[in-house]
Amino acid sequence: MNLALLTDEDFVGDNQVRLTGRRLRHLTDVLKASVGDEITVGRVNGAIGSGRLTRLNNDLAELTVALDQRPPLPLPLTLVLAMPRPKMFRRVLQTVAALGVKDIWIINAYKVEKSFWQTPWLEPEALTENLTLGLEQARDTRMPTVHLRQRFKPFVEDELPGILQERPGLVAHPGTDRPCPTHINAPATLCIGPEGGFIPYEVDKLIEAGCQAVHLGNRILRVETAVPVLVGRLYDSCNH
Amino acid sequence: MNLALLTDEDFVGDNQVRLTGRRLRHLTDVLKASVGDEITVGRVNGAIGSGRLTRLNNDLAELTVALDQRPPLPLPLTLVLAMPRPKMFRRVLQTVAALGVKDIWIINAYKVEKSFWQTPWLEPEALTENLTLGLEQARDTRMPTVHLRQRFKPFVEDELPGILQERPGLVAHPGTDRPCPTHINAPATLCIGPEGGFIPYEVDKLIEAGCQAVHLGNRILRVETAVPVLVGRLYDSCNH
Repeated sequence: MNLALLTDEDFVGDNQVRLTGRRLRHLTDVLKASVGDEITVGRVNGAIGSGRLTRLNNDLAELTVALDQRPPLPLPLTLVLAMPRPKMFRRVLQTVAALGVKDIWIINAYKVEKSFWQTPWLEPEALTENLTLGLEQARDTRMPTVHLRQRFKPFVEDELPGILQERPGLVAHPGTDRPCPTHINAPATLCIGPEGGFIPYEVDKLIEAGCQAVHLGNRILRVETAVPVLVGRLYDSCNH
Repeated sequence: MNLALLTDEDFVGDNQVRLTGRRLRHLTDVLKASVGDEITVGRVNGAIGSGRLTRLNNDLAELTVALDQRPPLPLPLTLVLAMPRPKMFRRVLQTVAALGVKDIWIINAYKVEKSFWQTPWLEPEALTENLTLGLEQARDTRMPTVHLRQRFKPFVEDELPGILQERPGLVAHPGTDRPCPTHINAPATLCIGPEGGFIPYEVDKLIEAGCQAVHLGNRILRVETAVPVLVGRLYDSCNH
């Protein structure tokens, strides 16, 4: 936690916040903070600044905050991701939030196991919690939006073409000749398949919707590694 | 496991191998393989090819293998990494091996907790196991070398300058003005600090040894995310 992310409910006055639960425990157990200490704070979808601890006990921490800096710029990247294995999904959410991706579509694909959609990590509170952990890691405040689409075809036919108008699409596909472009530094949509990849029908549908198929070299990377590699390749900095 | 990595001990004949343990269980439980099936195999530090299952029971799998393809090219990147938190260290090893890094130096730093060096994940068998998992993910065979250096100063003064002669060094340091270079596609050494970063004394010593300090933007990334982002930024493909 390189920043404590504050929600409206944390505010008990204009510049006064009260923290409990995970953030309180982090202050006491990890940071070993005491009254008078300053920590970095930020307000969800708002500014960043510092908070001075004015009260600290087993039940709560109170801080006086001054929020006067802008959060890092978002990446102009939309991520379309076949639903990963639940254990990995959690880490992927944190990673993607830390990288500055703000628009995330979790979709179905032939090789996504049906059981993956049953994970409690897809509950709204769990999504927010893991995105928050990513934002707090990266010192960001802008909460990403996660869209869940359990049916591949209606998403690709009805929604994806609109998304691609603003942000041209790439689909990672080992079979193709064209290598992934580098340092485009421009808006883009990145589609990443499940373990084992998209099936040819799905790649065809993605291309039909407007995506360009690109390969990433002959190493097969896990999604949690492939996404940061691609972000590094497409963007010269995570502050666009 | 996108490839089963074979060691000398697995060979019972010129083209015959016998698998037990983890790889056997993966064949039966995950791939649900049966006699006659072909899987991708590779020999440690050698060629890649296919193996046909000739026998399969609860105790062993026998395969006839044909190894005739080259493994992916290594990345010309040396990674100098402050010893991470053990839980993360394991994943970092797998990630780094999957990315094609072959030369890994795990060093001490002021903010590395002493207890990190006690983890069983530093035992030679555990290092090999996690590197193997990364190679098997990426379909690679070339085993990386891991050097453990529990004393910062002798490493930086006596060993690092020699490493940097072949592969110029970058140290990730948030305080500096110079952004990380992009798509260099050339040999390099990348030094990455612990959670909380290298202290100024350590950065100075790394610069004295010949490293250039660069910043990675104002997001703070976990080492397991920062490494693939940097690999993506420095190299246009993981097949150099």
